[in-house]
Amino acid sequence: MARWEPGSSQRLQQAALDLFDEQGYERTTVAEIAARAGVTERTFFRCFSDKREVLFAGSERLLEEFTLAVANSVATAPAEMAADALSGSSEFFGEERRPWARRRAAVVFGHPALAEREQLKMGALATAVAAALRERGVGEPAATLLAHSTITVFRVAFETWIADDTGRTMTQIQQELFAALRLSLAG
Amino acid sequence: MARWEPGSSQRLQQAALDLFDEQGYERTTVAEIAARAGVTERTFFRCFSDKREVLFAGSERLLEEFTLAVANSVATAPAEMAADALSGSSEFFGEERRPWARRRAAVVFGHPALAEREQLKMGALATAVAAALRERGVGEPAATLLAHSTITVFRVAFETWIADDTGRTMTQIQQELFAALRLSLAG
Repeated sequence: MARWEPGSSQRLQQAALDLFDEQGYERTTVAEIAARAGVTERTFFRCFSDKREVLFAGSERLLEEFTLAVANSVATAPAEMAADALSGSSEFFGEERRPWARRRAAVVFGHPALAEREQLKMGALATAVAAALRERGVGEPAATLLAHSTITVFRVAFETWIADDTGRTMTQIQQELFAALRLSLAG
Repeated sequence: MARWEPGSSQRLQQAALDLFDEQGYERTTVAEIAARAGVTERTFFRCFSDKREVLFAGSERLLEEFTLAVANSVATAPAEMAADALSGSSEFFGEERRPWARRRAAVVFGHPALAEREQLKMGALATAVAAALRERGVGEPAATLLAHSTITVFRVAFETWIADDTGRTMTQIQQELFAALRLSLAG
């Protein structure tokens, strides 16, 4: 399955990041991004609703990976379903994606409005994971508490992954952090 | 210590909530809030920077309660420091505050921009608790993971508390939820 196919969207995302690096996020226009990617503005708007969405277009798919992993989990213990949600999301963060994720994060966390959007996106992820856990029969408050814990692990893992230079995969980092969370709460 | 003294701020907060209920948040002006509270606009602006801050003025103090509770905790286990942070914040949510908190929440969660601000406030709380835990010698990633878990428990507890009609205190609800989180992650 081609997760990162070299189509217009990817070329636009690369072009956008290059331009954000060179001249800043604020000063870059959709017209410039399209021109750099060698596509028309019309093609840009078929892929993304606006400049900001170039940075956030992956979030729908990420949400699906999380919730599908819970739905398809063979685990019976809720905490193991949460662990499977993390494993499912790990596939989204293949090694080939790391340089892009790193550059994207630099732009997002360098702009308060984008960082706020990122935080809201994480809230939506937690809500979706909680719903997926309830679908699997996990009651409240466990579903909501576990879902938020899952997203906490995911966020910290993501920050670790983009900063990491030891070659650990996102899967490994998430597993380590989930274990660390369980240990710190058990202590 | 008078935490909820009947001064201008409190009268302004009551007046604001009454007006938000009667005519909606958007349609209410600072001038109307001041008039209803029987104070001048100048007094309003000595208490709050704008209309929105009437709803969010407590967040600074809440952040202090959390971080002070961690700093003053006699616990040595990080999870117990987190539990103490929750106990510390509970004092902020005395029974006399529940009706106000309930009405405030109805306004905040009824307006996406206010709900977003609430979510960002929670992110800032987690960051502050993580810093307080590190000050107490808790290493990373435990400090960040525990801090976010603490705020998760706090958020769910708060929603439960304002909806609750069984007479449970915020302290009891937070303790129950913290125990539920620990149990669900142990399972």
